[in-house]
Amino acid sequence: MENLLRGLFACVREDLEAVERELERVVRLPDPSLTETSRHLLTAGGKRMRPAFCLLAARFTPCALERVVPLAASLELIHMASLVHDDVVDEALIRRGQPTVRARWGNRISTHMGDYLFAQSLVLISTYGEPLVQRVLADTSVKMCQGEIHQIAGAFDVDQDLKDYLGRINRKTALLIAASCQLGGVVSGAPPQVWRRLLCFGRYLGMAFQVVDDILDFVADQNELGKPVGSDLAQGILTLPAIRALDHSPARERLRTLLQRRLAGEGDLQEAVDLILVCGAIEYSFAIAARYVAKAKEHLALLPGCEAKAVLDRIADFVTVRRF
Amino acid sequence: MENLLRGLFACVREDLEAVERELERVVRLPDPSLTETSRHLLTAGGKRMRPAFCLLAARFTPCALERVVPLAASLELIHMASLVHDDVVDEALIRRGQPTVRARWGNRISTHMGDYLFAQSLVLISTYGEPLVQRVLADTSVKMCQGEIHQIAGAFDVDQDLKDYLGRINRKTALLIAASCQLGGVVSGAPPQVWRRLLCFGRYLGMAFQVVDDILDFVADQNELGKPVGSDLAQGILTLPAIRALDHSPARERLRTLLQRRLAGEGDLQEAVDLILVCGAIEYSFAIAARYVAKAKEHLALLPGCEAKAVLDRIADFVTVRRF
Repeated sequence: MENLLRGLFACVREDLEAVERELERVVRLPDPSLTETSRHLLTAGGKRMRPAFCLLAARFTPCALERVVPLAASLELIHMASLVHDDVVDEALIRRGQPTVRARWGNRISTHMGDYLFAQSLVLISTYGEPLVQRVLADTSVKMCQGEIHQIAGAFDVDQDLKDYLGRINRKTALLIAASCQLGGVVSGAPPQVWRRLLCFGRYLGMAFQVVDDILDFVADQNELGKPVGSDLAQGILTLPAIRALDHSPARERLRTLLQRRLAGEGDLQEAVDLILVCGAIEYSFAIAARYVAKAKEHLALLPGCEAKAVLDRIADFVTVRRF
Repeated sequence: MENLLRGLFACVREDLEAVERELERVVRLPDPSLTETSRHLLTAGGKRMRPAFCLLAARFTPCALERVVPLAASLELIHMASLVHDDVVDEALIRRGQPTVRARWGNRISTHMGDYLFAQSLVLISTYGEPLVQRVLADTSVKMCQGEIHQIAGAFDVDQDLKDYLGRINRKTALLIAASCQLGGVVSGAPPQVWRRLLCFGRYLGMAFQVVDDILDFVADQNELGKPVGSDLAQGILTLPAIRALDHSPARERLRTLLQRRLAGEGDLQEAVDLILVCGAIEYSFAIAARYVAKAKEHLALLPGCEAKAVLDRIADFVTVRRF
């Protein structure tokens, strides 16, 4: 599966390597005692999805790679910073199968490491003359925080509905992916009608991506996902499958009771997961994700034809079939 | 004492009120359940020193207040964000006599609240067309994080010297005060020879300010300071008085032993504080602070005469006499 994704990114592989070198450069810390922390952040890093989107979006207009690399790296840094801070607050000990920064170095270092990564992203962003780049990333960062805060404030809130959920994942995930596509277009010099479509493509695909992520928390193989099954629910984060089940499961009153007592009883988590799995909520959630993918592809279809367009189309298809 | 400072800021009182309204606007959160958190952040806020420096620095060149207010507010937001994150990592339960955000709402909300404040500062900063504003604040933010990380990595490190300490407080504190003075000049349209001097003034005054802060941790009345005496030392943060005592106290070997065992024995903290207090390290540290104040005033003296210049001069004098 990882290989499939690597195949999709093949046409930007060399560009991604340039981004990787940029990340290595900026994540490095002056204190030699912290070199390992930095290296750990890089190796525990993700699939570099945001840089890949940014690089692909920039391919619609001919431009020098150096124009896009700092932006692509800064998008990954913003994402990494939010992961590091999630680990602080969630007290998560495992991410992507590796101990988190927090588990290895404690809350103190990881809070500041998250801030450090974010600040480094600003240094990269400040090299761009377009005010739109700064503005979009500032607004996106504010909304990402609001999404996270909303998620915490709404823990175990059994009265939240589909609209609350969609607003939350839009801010938490979709906006940064949208910004990756939009700004890749902007810095490459694409005209507004192109980067506006790229923005819409990114936003819908980002929504689909997060819905699938939330589904995988219930159904994925723990080893493939790198974290325990039902871990969102255990923290009181009610995602689409849970919200659907609370509304449509024949056992919804029981599920409500379990969540209202914050899954505090023995076996509560497993019972809640099982109730969600059997009521069709997973199938419903996949259908919602597929609808977002279709919307993303509609916007993509209206963009000028090029190799990047074909690749983005195949990535869109990949989102709903991925298993990690 | 608070009244004295208020008197010094009198000539920018109305400008500061405009900054306060801006802060209230951006700190507000969409979730009504979090209104109290936001309000708490504002009321527990500090002396608005960074906005005051910025507003005063802008007074050397005639300019509209609206030009400076977003910058002044963003400087306070960056400072507030770093305080909120300090509280997370230090597990501090009291700041300025009030329970910290963390103590009231837990680590989870306060990590994201810190990120939120910082992100809001970026939105304000993104309204400025001068690339220098973005660049200076991005670089300053990176270095502030490096300072914090360096401080944690060096906890209870009895081999650090004066140079390590000065480098650390420069990054942790002085650079943001320097940026407040410099950028107040920049956005008001001051010529480079003016904002370069403002930058030097701010940096030296910021150094003096932090040295005095570190002294007060040993000598201030706990009620006036709003936190327990020796709280830096208790966390292993070796500040100037401790570093001086480790080098010059007749009982330096004993102090070394206490710190190397991380003040783990009963009465260790009190004994270490007493050793530092009796060896002349406090007087030495005050002399260092006074030297920085003198350097700050040298740079100020070369700036064109105006009301703001006279006020900054009196603020510089205030730094070494303050007791909170």
